Amino acid sequence: MSKQVDVLVVMGSDSDLATMDKCLDVLNDFGVSFECRISSAHRTPEETCKMATSARNRGIKVIIAAAGMAAHLAGVIAAHTTLPVIGVPMVSGSFQGFDALLSMVQMPPGIPVATVGTGSSGAKNAALLAVQIMATEDSVLTEKLEQYKKDMAKAVFEKDQQLQDKLSK
Amino acid sequence: MSKQVDVLVVMGSDSDLATMDKCLDVLNDFGVSFECRISSAHRTPEETCKMATSARNRGIKVIIAAAGMAAHLAGVIAAHTTLPVIGVPMVSGSFQGFDALLSMVQMPPGIPVATVGTGSSGAKNAALLAVQIMATEDSVLTEKLEQYKKDMAKAVFEKDQQLQDKLSK
Amino acid sequence: MSKQVDVLVVMGSDSDLATMDKCLDVLNDFGVSFECRISSAHRTPEETCKMATSARNRGIKVIIAAAGMAAHLAGVIAAHTTLPVIGVPMVSGSFQGFDALLSMVQMPPGIPVATVGTGSSGAKNAALLAVQIMATEDSVLTEKLEQYKKDMAKAVFEKDQQLQDKLSK
Amino acid sequence: MSKQVDVLVVMGSDSDLATMDKCLDVLNDFGVSFECRISSAHRTPEETCKMATSARNRGIKVIIAAAGMAAHLAGVIAAHTTLPVIGVPMVSGSFQGFDALLSMVQMPPGIPVATVGTGSSGAKNAALLAVQIMATEDSVLTEKLEQYKKDMAKAVFEKDQQLQDKLSK
Amino acid sequence: MSKQVDVLVVMGSDSDLATMDKCLDVLNDFGVSFECRISSAHRTPEETCKMATSARNRGIKVIIAAAGMAAHLAGVIAAHTTLPVIGVPMVSGSFQGFDALLSMVQMPPGIPVATVGTGSSGAKNAALLAVQIMATEDSVLTEKLEQYKKDMAKAVFEKDQQLQDKLSK
Amino acid sequence: MSKQVDVLVVMGSDSDLATMDKCLDVLNDFGVSFECRISSAHRTPEETCKMATSARNRGIKVIIAAAGMAAHLAGVIAAHTTLPVIGVPMVSGSFQGFDALLSMVQMPPGIPVATVGTGSSGAKNAALLAVQIMATEDSVLTEKLEQYKKDMAKAVFEKDQQLQDKLSK
Amino acid sequence: MSKQVDVLVVMGSDSDLATMDKCLDVLNDFGVSFECRISSAHRTPEETCKMATSARNRGIKVIIAAAGMAAHLAGVIAAHTTLPVIGVPMVSGSFQGFDALLSMVQMPPGIPVATVGTGSSGAKNAALLAVQIMATEDSVLTEKLEQYKKDMAKAVFEKDQQLQDKLSK
Amino acid sequence: MSKQVDVLVVMGSDSDLATMDKCLDVLNDFGVSFECRISSAHRTPEETCKMATSARNRGIKVIIAAAGMAAHLAGVIAAHTTLPVIGVPMVSGSFQGFDALLSMVQMPPGIPVATVGTGSSGAKNAALLAVQIMATEDSVLTEKLEQYKKDMAKAVFEKDQQLQDKLSK
Repeated sequence: MSKQVDVLVVMGSDSDLATMDKCLDVLNDFGVSFECRISSAHRTPEETCKMATSARNRGIKVIIAAAGMAAHLAGVIAAHTTLPVIGVPMVSGSFQGFDALLSMVQMPPGIPVATVGTGSSGAKNAALLAVQIMATEDSVLTEKLEQYKKDMAKAVFEKDQQLQDKLSK
Repeated sequence: MSKQVDVLVVMGSDSDLATMDKCLDVLNDFGVSFECRISSAHRTPEETCKMATSARNRGIKVIIAAAGMAAHLAGVIAAHTTLPVIGVPMVSGSFQGFDALLSMVQMPPGIPVATVGTGSSGAKNAALLAVQIMATEDSVLTEKLEQYKKDMAKAVFEKDQQLQDKLSK
Repeated sequence: MSKQVDVLVVMGSDSDLATMDKCLDVLNDFGVSFECRISSAHRTPEETCKMATSARNRGIKVIIAAAGMAAHLAGVIAAHTTLPVIGVPMVSGSFQGFDALLSMVQMPPGIPVATVGTGSSGAKNAALLAVQIMATEDSVLTEKLEQYKKDMAKAVFEKDQQLQDKLSK
Repeated sequence: MSKQVDVLVVMGSDSDLATMDKCLDVLNDFGVSFECRISSAHRTPEETCKMATSARNRGIKVIIAAAGMAAHLAGVIAAHTTLPVIGVPMVSGSFQGFDALLSMVQMPPGIPVATVGTGSSGAKNAALLAVQIMATEDSVLTEKLEQYKKDMAKAVFEKDQQLQDKLSK
Repeated sequence: MSKQVDVLVVMGSDSDLATMDKCLDVLNDFGVSFECRISSAHRTPEETCKMATSARNRGIKVIIAAAGMAAHLAGVIAAHTTLPVIGVPMVSGSFQGFDALLSMVQMPPGIPVATVGTGSSGAKNAALLAVQIMATEDSVLTEKLEQYKKDMAKAVFEKDQQLQDKLSK
Repeated sequence: MSKQVDVLVVMGSDSDLATMDKCLDVLNDFGVSFECRISSAHRTPEETCKMATSARNRGIKVIIAAAGMAAHLAGVIAAHTTLPVIGVPMVSGSFQGFDALLSMVQMPPGIPVATVGTGSSGAKNAALLAVQIMATEDSVLTEKLEQYKKDMAKAVFEKDQQLQDKLSK
Repeated sequence: MSKQVDVLVVMGSDSDLATMDKCLDVLNDFGVSFECRISSAHRTPEETCKMATSARNRGIKVIIAAAGMAAHLAGVIAAHTTLPVIGVPMVSGSFQGFDALLSMVQMPPGIPVATVGTGSSGAKNAALLAVQIMATEDSVLTEKLEQYKKDMAKAVFEKDQQLQDKLSK
Repeated sequence: MSKQVDVLVVMGSDSDLATMDKCLDVLNDFGVSFECRISSAHRTPEETCKMATSARNRGIKVIIAAAGMAAHLAGVIAAHTTLPVIGVPMVSGSFQGFDALLSMVQMPPGIPVATVGTGSSGAKNAALLAVQIMATEDSVLTEKLEQYKKDMAKAVFEKDQQLQDKLSK
């Protein structure tokens, strides 16, 4: 693992992978190097802390943390690093990610977690936010983000056109 | 700090003390030795982990953790000990302790937090739960608990009697 | 039923058994003796009270109560014993266990219920919390809990390794 | 207490009296005899059960139970009687009566609690509901209820007239 | 429709019938005569008001109203009668009956609705509450209610016994 | 009351007037004629229905209904007219207008209520929405709305300028 | 697109079409001309603003905006027009349309959004509300609305009759 | 305004300034240049879009957007830039910032908003997150962040020591 890694993606459980695949796909699309790990704030706390503590020295720029229920992972990581930490509330258990959202976003003053939406929308947006953060000093990534925005707009225009075609029949 | 300590009470912030005083009062009333510390899961994570990790060897029986908002304190402590950890959701920030409740109680399987109610009711109950836990092997404490129950009942009877007196006038 | 019983598990309905099986499995894994009963706070109140009242004299150390909706079972039991009572909010009815959580955790001062999370995560954690309570005076159980923690960590490491293998392909 | 009592009003705490005064006022206005007691589902469970169990034989027609937070009082009473039990969720603790509402209304099948709104509106409505129940077989009470409805309407008309006067100035 | 009717059951939509069947079954079991109608507070307001207004003169004792979402049916009926009105919040739309519960239970002072739980539990309990109300002056119904309570208890005992048999294998 | 009235504003209680004053002010500012009435869906149901039923024939264009808690007023009015009905959820009782919001907005298909936000923001917006509805065929009102939008923008620019002045000191 | 259009229906995503079909059906039933577009407040913001800004000059009377999650579409459109804007909260993501409802209805003072219920009920009601708005100056539409109300009532009567037939068997 | 600006802070209303002062203080403490503007997504939409669109070319690195209720500001800004946008939900209106939180965090895929907690905790954390983002390529800021973390820890230790002193008396 001596390769350059820009984004560290940490999941609290392997059951989060199906959702976080959307995050990894976006990172891949932008050509951003990442390491994806399973590490639990509660079951493997020392290793989680070590990952967080060592991240900056490894050249990592952004950490993405995904967890469900009483989702402490992002907060615990944020406690051990000064890198920006993005939290993705997973939709698990009986409260549909609502507990995870509050457990991530309501951090006490001093330790921010950049929280995105629940589930797969949040997973995708976490990757884009990580790219945006890296793009603040990277014109190539900035151009890719501009292109991504144009592609999204184009996709909406095409769907609108298909709807017009359908409705005019 | 070489004195014998049965209960470790940890608060995430000194602003929690006004609420947790009710917890300390009950512990004092039962003659249970305790240590009360301010330590933050996010601002002093290493010290919090050390407190949790060393607690059993110090002879501590139960840990009570009070925190508000994205209240990770109890969960982080529970991750580092096999002692029973009681969580008290503090009423702070804009959601009236609701975020703290979900952040404490919805722990993933494997790492329980014994959560009590929000605010001062929870603070008092956390102390009583700690005493109940210690009383499982302690007949003196058991007797005190029985007496406490009788006193509570007596207080209700007296208030009922006062009401009857008032209403019969 | 003259056999030694350490933990009394009470469910409000036989429909809770599918969830509470996870609790019984953990108790079995730790070699903790238990009695599992169906008894309702509302349909068989006298029997429920008797179970609670007689529990300490039978040598029971901890009571686990599982119920859904307006889940009064744990509170009613706690009113009749000084043993620690663990409440498990069941996910039933239309509010996904949210009503059961509030009905259990928001106990008035004087009568604590050690509430764990909703559904099967809570069921498992209730058993572990019961073991933790008994382990405060039991070095064999303490060792088993330490081993359990190590096994959980090991399972996370293995899943992380599998993910690394998968991603490196 | 050998006097005839139609309605038994039970409160879990004397702090509920300020709110429940509105209930007692309505009962007084309708000339309905009542007994008002403080009795706790958790602190004086036996006495609460006895009150419930003996109510029908004492000639009581309806029971009103007021409690806050994890409000088990109405449900516990309903478990011990076949009389109609009206639950009034008190606004106390940090969740503004929301916990009390769910703890009262979401009763399991077989044990209904006739739940009214939170706080003083509910307190007043509980009394009216009790009167309505007694009025099903009582033409005098029925007439009083009809008059009460007319008086309410008249009060609205008067306030509307005052508003018209004010706005036309 | 000149037959004697004790309970008027009104549903806002025919889609509520599948849930309210449980209510009708209980009324049938107790031998209580009822009329079951579909009438909407919003789509057939005049007819709904007429049903409510005429109910007492028809000899009806209790009205049960079932509706979902912004469930005004019970409140509208209560505005037009002095009979006790029981509200059953239906589980429909996207909020799982939570909107219906608040729309029913939070009535302004003066116009109570006796609200029971959401969905089929509430449907069953509405019938039992209606029977309880009628039983305040009816010793036959009272005996049936006592028997119903015993049968419920017996069913719990039998399930508990089955569980003991199963666990002892 | 033979004068021409464009907007009928109905409040369920005179306690709503302090909030709804903001609605009346906006209507006055736009020179829209209105009638403001206190009428309750539950206490004066017939009069409320009559107001709704007769509104269109009186030349009224829009009805604004303000109510709190189980806020049925807007829905009941909408059941009796084909005019657009705007609902304003009042902030009263213990749930901060949340019950009123759900009771208004979650109308069944067929009977819309145009719901605006809770409290004074909603009160103001209800008036503006009424003006917008009337302006669809009224160029003078349209111009006033355009001017209102410009004035709002201007007020923001001025506040921004004040902030710049303050920060640059 | 030079044809006359009365109602502009905008959806944030083509996935909303399955729900909004119910809206289009009602508009068709009333013979109201409409244009249905897919345009996103976030992905195609300029085009969305242009649609809103140009709507009044195109002769459009009402705009209906449907979006889910952090549903800004209706508010963004309302910021760029003085036409009445109806918001329909879509049921998508993990919070069942609850986030969309709050994102639409809680508009700041000055920029109203006429919010209807979540999902397909809201979709249908949005169309009816648009027709009601246009009908304030259109007697043909008014008659159609009166007929629609009668048809709804008739459908309820028929279903009630079917129920009576079924129950009398 | 030709000076170099790193962070653009935008508030939807001047009433947000009292809360956002905590954000500006932190930015000042870190020596980060910022511009603080009042601009509304709904009242001054064009200017808000221009601010967002032009931000990157002006050399701005991060945008912080604070708004309450249906808080669209952060999302609207994010729609017009590829810079990272941090959203701070203000506590205003009747829902205590809960509406603002959902309106900010639940963004659709493609347009992330980095949401922090509600109110003043979030205001402070937004500034720290902005600094963290800039610090990914700035070793001076990184050192300041490390020092900030140490200072926070030191403050906790001091408060803990004061507590020990107080308790040992």
